Parts: sequence; structure tokens; C-alpha cells
Amino acid sequence: MERVLVSEIEKHLGKEITIAGRIIGLRKMGSITFVILQDYTGQIQTVFEKEVVAKFGEAVTISGSPRKDERAKSGFEIEGKVLKVIAKNTEDLPLDLSKTKFDLQLSTLLDLRTVSLRHPKIQAIFKIYDLLLEAYEKVMREESFTEIKTPKILEVASEGGANLFKIKYFEKDAYLAQSPQLYKQIMVGVFERVFEIGSTFRAEPHFTTRHVNEYISLDAEMGFIKDYKTVTAMLNKVLVKIFEHLKKEGQKYFEMYELEVPEVPTEIPHLKLSEIKKIIKEKYNYEIPKNTDIDPEAERLACRYAKEEFGTDFIFVTHYPWKDRPFYTMPDPENKEATYGFDLLFRGVEIATGSQRIHEHEMLLDNMEKKGVKPAGLEFYLDIFKYAMPPHGGWAIGSERLVQLMLNLGSVKEAVLFPRDVKRLSP
Amino acid sequence: MERVLVSEIEKHLGKEITIAGRIIGLRKMGSITFVILQDYTGQIQTVFEKEVVAKFGEAVTISGSPRKDERAKSGFEIEGKVLKVIAKNTEDLPLDLSKTKFDLQLSTLLDLRTVSLRHPKIQAIFKIYDLLLEAYEKVMREESFTEIKTPKILEVASEGGANLFKIKYFEKDAYLAQSPQLYKQIMVGVFERVFEIGSTFRAEPHFTTRHVNEYISLDAEMGFIKDYKTVTAMLNKVLVKIFEHLKKEGQKYFEMYELEVPEVPTEIPHLKLSEIKKIIKEKYNYEIPKNTDIDPEAERLACRYAKEEFGTDFIFVTHYPWKDRPFYTMPDPENKEATYGFDLLFRGVEIATGSQRIHEHEMLLDNMEKKGVKPAGLEFYLDIFKYAMPPHGGWAIGSERLVQLMLNLGSVKEAVLFPRDVKRLSP
Repeated sequence: MERVLVSEIEKHLGKEITIAGRIIGLRKMGSITFVILQDYTGQIQTVFEKEVVAKFGEAVTISGSPRKDERAKSGFEIEGKVLKVIAKNTEDLPLDLSKTKFDLQLSTLLDLRTVSLRHPKIQAIFKIYDLLLEAYEKVMREESFTEIKTPKILEVASEGGANLFKIKYFEKDAYLAQSPQLYKQIMVGVFERVFEIGSTFRAEPHFTTRHVNEYISLDAEMGFIKDYKTVTAMLNKVLVKIFEHLKKEGQKYFEMYELEVPEVPTEIPHLKLSEIKKIIKEKYNYEIPKNTDIDPEAERLACRYAKEEFGTDFIFVTHYPWKDRPFYTMPDPENKEATYGFDLLFRGVEIATGSQRIHEHEMLLDNMEKKGVKPAGLEFYLDIFKYAMPPHGGWAIGSERLVQLMLNLGSVKEAVLFPRDVKRLSP
Repeated sequence: MERVLVSEIEKHLGKEITIAGRIIGLRKMGSITFVILQDYTGQIQTVFEKEVVAKFGEAVTISGSPRKDERAKSGFEIEGKVLKVIAKNTEDLPLDLSKTKFDLQLSTLLDLRTVSLRHPKIQAIFKIYDLLLEAYEKVMREESFTEIKTPKILEVASEGGANLFKIKYFEKDAYLAQSPQLYKQIMVGVFERVFEIGSTFRAEPHFTTRHVNEYISLDAEMGFIKDYKTVTAMLNKVLVKIFEHLKKEGQKYFEMYELEVPEVPTEIPHLKLSEIKKIIKEKYNYEIPKNTDIDPEAERLACRYAKEEFGTDFIFVTHYPWKDRPFYTMPDPENKEATYGFDLLFRGVEIATGSQRIHEHEMLLDNMEKKGVKPAGLEFYLDIFKYAMPPHGGWAIGSERLVQLMLNLGSVKEAVLFPRDVKRLSP
């Protein structure tokens, strides 16, 4: 018999149908067996007036008649007639997926990732991730950005050289891209507005809750800007629309975490890093260590300030120091030690980095020299600035970190299907 | 003055406005200068009753008054008042972008890629590519596939070991993914239907018009299938919808190549490889060399047959030999030497590969042993088949090759923004 999807059951009330999917609930009460089946469109309870020969987690077809049931979430249940196992568990599952919560360490859950991903609460994370990707695609196109795909194998280190994975490329050495930076700037010369969703690789030996060594970056770059504020305004607009989409389509997944979809203000507050420094010293008596521009504690306090002062979880911190920002960042014309570089902080953590870029050939060469960056191998990029590059800028959003923070997950690794860290290369 | 976009000029007839963009046409006729400006929404002609100080390719703002003009493609032109150069060419462009066609070798055009991409006909290729990505995202979601992103850095060779780029991953060796195969199968156990758009790396030392070493694969995998035909039917449906989208949104880019958007039949013909062999021997007197399952000439002839017999550019060739297909391919139950593996050919070239996969643990181990594939390091994948994997299958489409064939481009490299081949790592 033709398979009927759970989402279409309403159309088949009273008729005999066959559904197919995985058993995600199994309970006996006397002579009655309740089976909850999940397919890719939803889940439904089936009631058998007998015992059934099937185990939790197995793939089955169920034939029976759907009827209305006001107690059921979906409004329907199925009176089960025949249950057929399509694929068995040949061993017991290594995890009890019927529990509402796991009482296990993250490393164990990640070791068992291929199975733990089947848990509804973990599925919900990646349904939200799917919606985030959909929203970014949709919103960027609404703003007339062209989607591009740029190479991940590079001949030279694109941003100074540290933290790159080296690869053997036929007879040569090459590197994995740590960002599409140079290519998206080149593409501003072609399409003016471009975006990319792509793999990004960082050989950072970090052991933190917010770093992984491979992730998906949501990049954008746009031309004919006035200054960095044209970029932050666009990023703000894009985030408003993304979160609207999540609210519209993903509410039920947030509810599984007893959370609301975060609100993005139409005008996220902007503060200069120097102002932030002063505020957190005066208000919270915290001083940023001398060897860094901003540290995690200061990021948390900046967000605390944004919450207390402006009632929002988001804040743009702008004018990062010239010495800490990459060579292509536009210096602040009013203060040589600062730049038109910014970070977007959300709930205490950086989720996006961006800047206005230098668009004049001479200024770029000059800035590289001052920063000690060698032009060798970067000619393909540098030469483009001889040919009328308009003022431009852009951003990179860490997609997994954004999902982590939306759901208050303890580690970004929970928002990556199969995370890669210094020690973890499998599954 | 606020920037007005070319697409919005109609709303500003008779008023004075400022537009911004790149000069893509510049012509003097006596005391009159015609300037064609392109922004990210379109192009428009401006007429100055004087000489203007600007060069082809420069980024400018133009102030003036739009008026109706029936001779113009857009229906409007602008009476120019002031032209201001925003970004100059500090050197002459290395290519004449005002020509309708380049008379240069592909390798030269690729060396000059950062500039040659600005040519409208080359831009058109990547506008179609953008539409293809949009269509795939849209269509796969319409069919309830969940988008996933799987790791590109792998601990072990996933499909037998050949043609992999090796990387240094901290203290270990690792490999770049040559497909998301094992991960997308695992994800069938989670979401039943998944798709991925992702970077794929092949260390193949090929010098052909249809190979690059890094490309974007459009992958999909689906569960609860009957057999491989459920997969080919879904791929067929997806392609119909993609080409409808291209026709709706991309017609003008195809026109620049004097081409129609290809038609996809609602039922692409299926033929077994053994049938194809017989047909091309009998009809075209061609014999496939003994050392391969199918060669490029046979693929061309299979498509010629599809065209002559069924009037279509597409054909599914099914039942590829067991010895040539990867270990996870479902063997044909009726013929041990064949499989439920297929290729989709379009205009003489393979654009997609797929199969039903083995979903039973024992059969999988047995097939690996027969093929001499060692399970070591693949346990994370193999173990999932102990836990009720439903019958499933999927495909991988080479996105750039599909665009190449749609536009009859001489090489797939023309459909990659910054292609990577054995010799080319830059730009």
C-alpha cells in the first residue's frame, strides 16, 4: 500500500492507511500497546489492542485507521492493525533515547553522536540550524546579494599566516581557507553584493566552549558603502529578518528548550571599544588585561551593559585597535590607532566580525608594510585595487555559535553535527 | 544625496537623483557622451551633453534626471548632470571588457580571473550558478529534506582511499572529504531526508575539460525507499523544478548565450548499462573498452540515443557493475555482478551519481570483505547499521558541471569562480 505521511493523515480519516517511520515511543498498558511513530513530516500515536513485536528505535510500517483524538497534540491517533518491522535493531541502542534528558558528559554524547542525534531535543538543534541556513539564503537574496562559492584550497596564507592547516596539493604545499575574505572582496568588484555559506578551517589549538576547528561561516560583502555603519545597518537588518523567520518556523523547537526566540532590535546599539572599556571599568570595576583588545569577561560585561542600558542581547562594539585587526581593515581616519572594524556581541559572546575594508591600492600596500605583511603571493588580490574598487565592507557570522547562543547550549560543539576539535576527528 | 538603485528609477521620473555603480559602456558622439552604468540591480544609459572625465570600468556616481526612452531596453535613460568618480583605475585594465567576446585562451582568462569575471557574459554564468543554488535550496525544502553541513576534515579515507588530499591535523594526519557520503547516510537515521551543499575535494591528477579538484556537490539522501527508482524519481522531480526556476528567473542570462533553458522530461528514460552497451554497439557500432564500465564516448552515444529515441537530453543509466561501484552500493538481487547504482547523463556527460545503499549491517560487512575494504576507522559509520537503518539511497550532483553543460561551456573551469586544477592554485 502507498505510504501516507504523518502530515497528511487528516485527509484519510476513517480509511485504512499505511504509515512508515521510526518508533520513538513504545508503552504497554495491559493488553493495549501505544506506539509513537516519527517520519520526516511529524509524529503520531498508534494504539494497538494487542502486543506488538517491535522495539523502540526500529523502522516500521503501520497499517491502521486514523481517527480524531482531542487529547493528542496533532489532534489524531491511529487505530493500529498491522505493524511490520522494516529494519531491526540487531543490538541494543547504546543510549536510552526515550529519556527526556541525557545525564551524560558531552564527550560521551559526541562519541555516540551517530545515535544521540536521533534524540528529539538534539534533532531540534539541527532543525533550527536548517532554518538558519534557509533564512540566510532567503534574506540575503531579498537584499540582492549574489551567492558565491570560493575556493577552500589556497596557495598562500590569506590573513597573515597563523592557524592554518597545511595540505599536500600534488607537488605543492597549500593551505585550507580560514575565511573567504580576499575572494569575497574581489567579488564586490564583480557583483557589488555577494554572500557565501562555506566551510572554514582554523588550526587554533583552543580548548574552549566556543571554538571548533571547522565551521560554517555566513559571509557577506557589499560595495558603495558610506562607512562601516552601512555594513552594521545591513547586518542588523539581516538579523532582524533571520530571527523573524526562526520565530515563524521554529517556535516549537525553541519551546523544547523552554526558550523564546530572541528579539533583535531594529537599531542594535553601537559603542566604541574605548567607550566600552571606560564603562565596564566605571560600572563593573573590570579592567581588560593589557595584552588583548577585549577578553571574554569584558564581552560578557559589554552585553550586560547592553541589557541594562538598552534592554537588548545585542551590541556592536566598533573601532577595534589597528594593531589587532587584519591588514585589509580600514583605519579610522580620526584616530590612527583605531579602525573601522567591529564585532557583534550576542549574550556575552562575539557572533560576527566585520569592518569597512581598505579599497585604495596605495593605502593597502602602505598598511601592509606597516603591519609587516608581505605582498608575495597576494598579487592576485592586491592588483584588483588598481581597478576601481568602490568603498566596501562586510561581515562573517559563525553559524554554529549563533545557534549555540540562541539555545543557551553549553558548548558550540553541541551545535555542530560532527564537530572537529584538537582531539576529535571522529565520528 | 541618497543613492537610487537602477531598478527603482521608474519611481523617480522627472526628479533629480543620484545613481552609483560601475561604468560598463562609454561612448562619445560629437559633444554628447553616453555612459552605461551597472549597479547590483541592473544597468542604465546616461546621456551627458558634454565630455565626462571618467574611464571605462571606473566606479562613479551620476546625478541627473531620468526620463522615458522607448529605444532603451529598460525603457528609461538619464539626462546626466554631474558625474563623480568614486574609485579610479590607477592602471589600464589588463583586458578589454567592452568587447562582446574575448579572443583569449582559457588559461589567460583564468590568470586574469579577478578582472575577466567583470565581463557581462561571464557574470551571467555565475548569476545562473546563483539561481541553481537558490533552486536547489528551495526545491529540496519543498520535498521536506533537512539541510545539513558535515565535516570536510576526516580521520579516514571514506570511500576506499584513492584520490584524497592529505592534511596535517595537529599531531595527526587527516584527509579532505571527497564526498559527504557516510555522513549523509548516518543522517538518514536522524531526519530521514537530508541534503547538503558543500565543498568536495578530489586529488585526481586529471587534465580534462570536465574535472576540477575542488567543487561544490549538491547531495541528497532519503530513507524508506522502495528501491533505486524511488531515488531516480525524486532526482527527476528535483531537476524539473530546478529548470523551471532557471527558466523563470534566468532566461535573460541564457539569451546572452543564445540558448534556451533545457527541458527536463517528467520521466527521464532509464536504461541498464548492459542495454546501453548493446544499443551503442548495434546502432553506432561502438564498443566500450574492456578496462572500464563506460567511457566518455559511450556516454556521448547514450545521450545521442536518448535524443534520437526519446527526444531528451537526459538519460539514467542504471545497474552499474558491482566491481566498479563503492562498497555501500546495493547489489542487484537478480544479478550479482550488477548494482542498484546509477548515473544521470546530460548532453553526453555524467552530471549526477547515485544508488540505493546497503542498509543491513551484515550485508554491508560482507560486501566490504568481498571488495577488500577494511572496516578499521569506519566503525562510527558501520555501527549505525545495527540500529534499524531503513532502505535508503541518494545522489550527488556536480553543480559546476551542470552549469557547464547548460551553457555548453568548453570547460567546467569556466563555471567555477576560482578553479583549482593540478597546476592551478591561484587566483
